[in-house]
Amino acid sequence: MNAEILAVGTELLLGQIVNTNAQFIASELALLGIGVLFQGVVGDNRKRMEEAISIASNRSDILILTGGLGPTDDDLTREVIAQFFNKQLILEPDLLKQLESFFAGRGRQMPPNNRKQAMRIEGAQILANPRGTAPGQYLALPSKHVFLLPGPPSEMRPMFVESVIPILRSLFPNQTIQSRILRIVGIGESAMEEKVRDILDAQTNPTIAPYASEGECSLRITAKADTDARAWELITPVEQQLMERLSRYVYGRDTDTLPRVVGRELTQKGLTLAVAESCTGGLLGEYLTDAPGSSSFFIGGCITYSNEMKQQLLNVSSQTLKAYGAVSEQCATEMAIGLHNRTNADVCVSITGIAGPDGGTAEKPVGLVYICVYFNGQTYARELHLRGDRNQIRIRAAKQALQLLWRVITGTLETQS
Amino acid sequence: MNAEILAVGTELLLGQIVNTNAQFIASELALLGIGVLFQGVVGDNRKRMEEAISIASNRSDILILTGGLGPTDDDLTREVIAQFFNKQLILEPDLLKQLESFFAGRGRQMPPNNRKQAMRIEGAQILANPRGTAPGQYLALPSKHVFLLPGPPSEMRPMFVESVIPILRSLFPNQTIQSRILRIVGIGESAMEEKVRDILDAQTNPTIAPYASEGECSLRITAKADTDARAWELITPVEQQLMERLSRYVYGRDTDTLPRVVGRELTQKGLTLAVAESCTGGLLGEYLTDAPGSSSFFIGGCITYSNEMKQQLLNVSSQTLKAYGAVSEQCATEMAIGLHNRTNADVCVSITGIAGPDGGTAEKPVGLVYICVYFNGQTYARELHLRGDRNQIRIRAAKQALQLLWRVITGTLETQS
Repeated sequence: MNAEILAVGTELLLGQIVNTNAQFIASELALLGIGVLFQGVVGDNRKRMEEAISIASNRSDILILTGGLGPTDDDLTREVIAQFFNKQLILEPDLLKQLESFFAGRGRQMPPNNRKQAMRIEGAQILANPRGTAPGQYLALPSKHVFLLPGPPSEMRPMFVESVIPILRSLFPNQTIQSRILRIVGIGESAMEEKVRDILDAQTNPTIAPYASEGECSLRITAKADTDARAWELITPVEQQLMERLSRYVYGRDTDTLPRVVGRELTQKGLTLAVAESCTGGLLGEYLTDAPGSSSFFIGGCITYSNEMKQQLLNVSSQTLKAYGAVSEQCATEMAIGLHNRTNADVCVSITGIAGPDGGTAEKPVGLVYICVYFNGQTYARELHLRGDRNQIRIRAAKQALQLLWRVITGTLETQS
Repeated sequence: MNAEILAVGTELLLGQIVNTNAQFIASELALLGIGVLFQGVVGDNRKRMEEAISIASNRSDILILTGGLGPTDDDLTREVIAQFFNKQLILEPDLLKQLESFFAGRGRQMPPNNRKQAMRIEGAQILANPRGTAPGQYLALPSKHVFLLPGPPSEMRPMFVESVIPILRSLFPNQTIQSRILRIVGIGESAMEEKVRDILDAQTNPTIAPYASEGECSLRITAKADTDARAWELITPVEQQLMERLSRYVYGRDTDTLPRVVGRELTQKGLTLAVAESCTGGLLGEYLTDAPGSSSFFIGGCITYSNEMKQQLLNVSSQTLKAYGAVSEQCATEMAIGLHNRTNADVCVSITGIAGPDGGTAEKPVGLVYICVYFNGQTYARELHLRGDRNQIRIRAAKQALQLLWRVITGTLETQS
């Protein structure tokens, strides 16, 4: 069975928003082993919607529409799908009540327009939307499966996970797909592939797919089987094989991120963390506090953009700034030590560098960044040569600092790196 | 004339990347006054590409394809378009030389595969790609215009601006489209519309379109005319009319952003800025240092996530923390004053609040945030009730702080707000 994703919305055609829904749905379908051969976008226009639905329904078994379920006259998806498949629209008293209580819960009366959101396509199953007023619908036809989902990602994503995935799974009752992701840092994608090439090549079920993203990479092990237990029986030995070769690079699994893993590790060990940032201007602190619960390990730190601040807040010596400059291993080291002295945090991380586009010289080019971690009376400094634009250099510097931090606190630091 | 955007690439169908190219091209076409009725995505598959091209070319005058111009066997766009429109592929010696020198410039020999990137579709014009190996192509057919553009946004975007826009403009030699964007803050989209409703309704050329984004809104004035000068004659009086009503909310024009405008203002006035961040964890500092040149006004600051750091780094009194708590106007005010005392920055901004999802109480719910600006011996504090998830609350808090900062330094602060 193949699926097609059709987004409805003039704001997409005008380029006012990016169609992140298509990417989300496509990646979820890939995990389910359902192929997507086409994606499309069409405006809030009855005739062109019919045209797009006709083309999609001729070539795909599963049709997933996003958007056009709102209360305004422009929101046509329900009506057009009902008409296209010769179905009635039926007012559902229960849905109407839910909508009214959604508004009542916010201290407002339901506008009359929203009444149309209580209309169910004849034969369709309603998909609950606790986060908004647009319920989804699932219409099962002989050899055709049509899903109508709301456009806002904050409503569509949970509905997809909670309602659509269980339905899609039920279409393949004797097939399950499970996967495990290994999150990897400190080794490039090709070097990683090199180390496990024979394992990758030997597998057909589970399959192993390498991915690369900004500053890290991952391996996804995916198994198809008739039961979940059987799928995991296929995955586990392959995961163990990979771990034997890569364990020192694997910082986490599945939905782990480096800031969360670092935070978990620090919290478990009862250690506090502080940051001293120059060229990243607060980005590392932002990464570390992105997840809830970061106050259990993160205490704060200093943004020392100017040399004066490096001296005043972190006690970097004027001799160091004169002799080596603010972008130097010596300065990064003094920043980390000075931060520890100032805050008494158990672990202190510093970043100083040239993010560009200006400020580079032949000796110290744009992309030269020094990071340092202070822990247990020791400092661990690294010189980085980062590529990319200002934004990329800042992101990569913060990620490299997280990585060094993770290695230091887990005791997996290479002596050479 | 209508355009259709067709992205080619299996990685899009697998959800591995987001189709930001479609959004970029669509917004550029909207500025040119060219309508987009459909967008599509198809994989690297000859038969399905032909199918998608056939559908698109039946219903649209301008066809813009992205992706599939690389050197591998999977890259089929050139071949499929040539075949579909019955054209030969011709090896271009000049292109081949350029490719070879592209590789030579990087100290490498050109792999034989890349030779196919020197193939020009018969009758097509080559669009230069100084940033990569995939040149674009423009095929003008009787009543059909086909553009082949590379997939990587870093190559596609400049090629679109440098080569595609001039060609599209030349298709309408007696028509130019110019626009002016007014960047607005401190007033909601509907309240803004209310204030200028009569001006909006009275216009057909230029048109005025309101937009809303996270924490701010904008008005885009767009005029069509036969010359640029004539277009600006249409825009200017309307811009003046709007400014008469909205000047106190307009912080900038066109590509201005609030951090850049704040930075420009501070630099012009010779003022230095520092930040003290609690719940935003460094986000405000990151915003302020996002643009190059921020070192001319931004000196740094403190991330004081824990109460201890608020006391140690910013001298917030333990009485204040005990009596009012860390999330209070008193604490925000002491943070701003303490930061000034610590850093001697002319302007100091503080943020303290509850970003959630945990940590809220009936009295102090998630979303309660206090911001304060210190300037010239005065403090200006505000209580905010922000909605959204943790991430949104943090972004909105940082943007509101930027806004308050801008009002304070420009002297446009409302006494009530």
